[in-house]
Amino acid sequence: MTSIRNLADKVRDGQRTALGRAITLIESISPKHKQEAAELLERLLPAAGNSIRIGITGAPGAGKSTLIEKLGLYILKRGHKLAVLAIDPSSSISGGSILGDKTRMDELSRREDCFIRPSPSQGELGGVAHKTRESVMLCEAAGFDVILVETVGVGQSEAAARKMVDFFLLLQITGGGDDLQGVKRGVLELADAVFVTKADGDNKSKAVMTCRELQTAAGYIAPATKGWQTKTGICSAVTGLGVDEIWKTALKFRDITLQNGAFTQRRKNQAMEWMYSCLNERIVEHFAISLKQNSINGSAEEAVANFKMTPAKGAEVLFHEIIKRQ
Amino acid sequence: MTSIRNLADKVRDGQRTALGRAITLIESISPKHKQEAAELLERLLPAAGNSIRIGITGAPGAGKSTLIEKLGLYILKRGHKLAVLAIDPSSSISGGSILGDKTRMDELSRREDCFIRPSPSQGELGGVAHKTRESVMLCEAAGFDVILVETVGVGQSEAAARKMVDFFLLLQITGGGDDLQGVKRGVLELADAVFVTKADGDNKSKAVMTCRELQTAAGYIAPATKGWQTKTGICSAVTGLGVDEIWKTALKFRDITLQNGAFTQRRKNQAMEWMYSCLNERIVEHFAISLKQNSINGSAEEAVANFKMTPAKGAEVLFHEIIKRQ
Repeated sequence: MTSIRNLADKVRDGQRTALGRAITLIESISPKHKQEAAELLERLLPAAGNSIRIGITGAPGAGKSTLIEKLGLYILKRGHKLAVLAIDPSSSISGGSILGDKTRMDELSRREDCFIRPSPSQGELGGVAHKTRESVMLCEAAGFDVILVETVGVGQSEAAARKMVDFFLLLQITGGGDDLQGVKRGVLELADAVFVTKADGDNKSKAVMTCRELQTAAGYIAPATKGWQTKTGICSAVTGLGVDEIWKTALKFRDITLQNGAFTQRRKNQAMEWMYSCLNERIVEHFAISLKQNSINGSAEEAVANFKMTPAKGAEVLFHEIIKRQ
Repeated sequence: MTSIRNLADKVRDGQRTALGRAITLIESISPKHKQEAAELLERLLPAAGNSIRIGITGAPGAGKSTLIEKLGLYILKRGHKLAVLAIDPSSSISGGSILGDKTRMDELSRREDCFIRPSPSQGELGGVAHKTRESVMLCEAAGFDVILVETVGVGQSEAAARKMVDFFLLLQITGGGDDLQGVKRGVLELADAVFVTKADGDNKSKAVMTCRELQTAAGYIAPATKGWQTKTGICSAVTGLGVDEIWKTALKFRDITLQNGAFTQRRKNQAMEWMYSCLNERIVEHFAISLKQNSINGSAEEAVANFKMTPAKGAEVLFHEIIKRQ
């Protein structure tokens, strides 16, 4: 435990290599490391929480990386320390990774006051999200007071990101294909702000139009945060247009929601959800082991594998065996 | 149970309205309906399984719906009965739905020998996927011998679809944005075939090029199915190019994998995975109720909500309380 105390001290001092090592520790799946990681997080908990956590999402091709580069540099210029993390469950086999290609955030990645970490990409979304949540805590303990959490695409990863951030920004491209409407709607409901990207050159007028449509659409749905009307705007990573507006929107959001209580209530709810999610994992793990040790799964497995019993029925049989033997 | 027996008979007779009612029953979350649904599935299990299950995925804008329309009509012409289902967890709040807009499958939706059902879109991906799996069984029992399972976007929903189909087809657009490379790689590993869409007019030569790149890429990764080399091609929903090739590829895939055992082994593994996934849900549900009834979660909840205890630690505390009281 001395070494963990030591590591915790170094993280709290803001030492970047220690922070990197700490995140590697929490990402490890070895049982020994898991215990150490838990100890580390408990030690650093009192130092965490003092930040604004901003989620950024957008479909592939929306230009997230280049916009984060611009926005990040702008935030650094205002004297903040910035951490950029990611959730990317896009590859369930080999483990893909956004932010892996740091060249897309060239200047940002060379800055001392910015910490960039690719997504822990092994395993199911739930597990990946846990690691990212814990990384947020570690970065905060290390003194990073603005945390960007990037996530890609459509689907569940946005929902996972929403569950760990204060303010959620959707980057949207102009126009779009057949399916875009459906996708947009689902994600729009999670967003506190939607900015149309690539609003430069010939594309600017199209961006203005898309922005207007989004504003209309946002008027029809419940806002993602109590007491806050979803903000729309346009931006460009090339000209820097809208970057200051995004940042000012985030700050205004924080002011308003701190005052009306929504900010703190959301963080409480998030901590609660997180706890129950950990609990569920723990319970499932425990009973999986108990099942193996008692080797009671043989006959149900055989019946299900030979399509003589539905998987749901097989699960019921196993469940009652487990409960009986407790 | 008489009414369930009756419903099962009607589904087995291939009555479409009965099939629709059966799927509505399995999608219901009421405890009474859940029990009835389990009974129904057990009754229909012997009649299920006799089909080829084809997963179709692609990013928004890849033209999935129009291609499915063409492919579906082609399959019907060969004398098959076709069911088109979907997994779409894209909206976690209001519940979005692909296939909701049937006008994109205009002709197909008016055919008597085709059954189209939108995604059950409420709840977490795991739950949505269970309902879709069960719908596959019901459609098979009703005599549909080709099942298409459509899924959208990047991320975990492809992995979920892969777990319930025999043959997995990725539809890919030409060219693409910054992030496309990363996304493509993850999904490519799941696919038995990749077809580049919109290979018509001016876009055809670009499609041929993209197809060649994909073929090269596919050569570097492990195939998704033992004994099968990932097939690449081009197609167009406008001209119908490649539609017959897709179907012939699926049939050839089935022949080869039935012969080398991979087809049946995958279905066995899928049934097994499905059972354990149901079991995990069942266990979590059971202990959530036990937790509530014993109201032992108060102090851990308070500490976590006030950021005095990490969520992981809170989960440990609750877990030990639960085990002690069993």
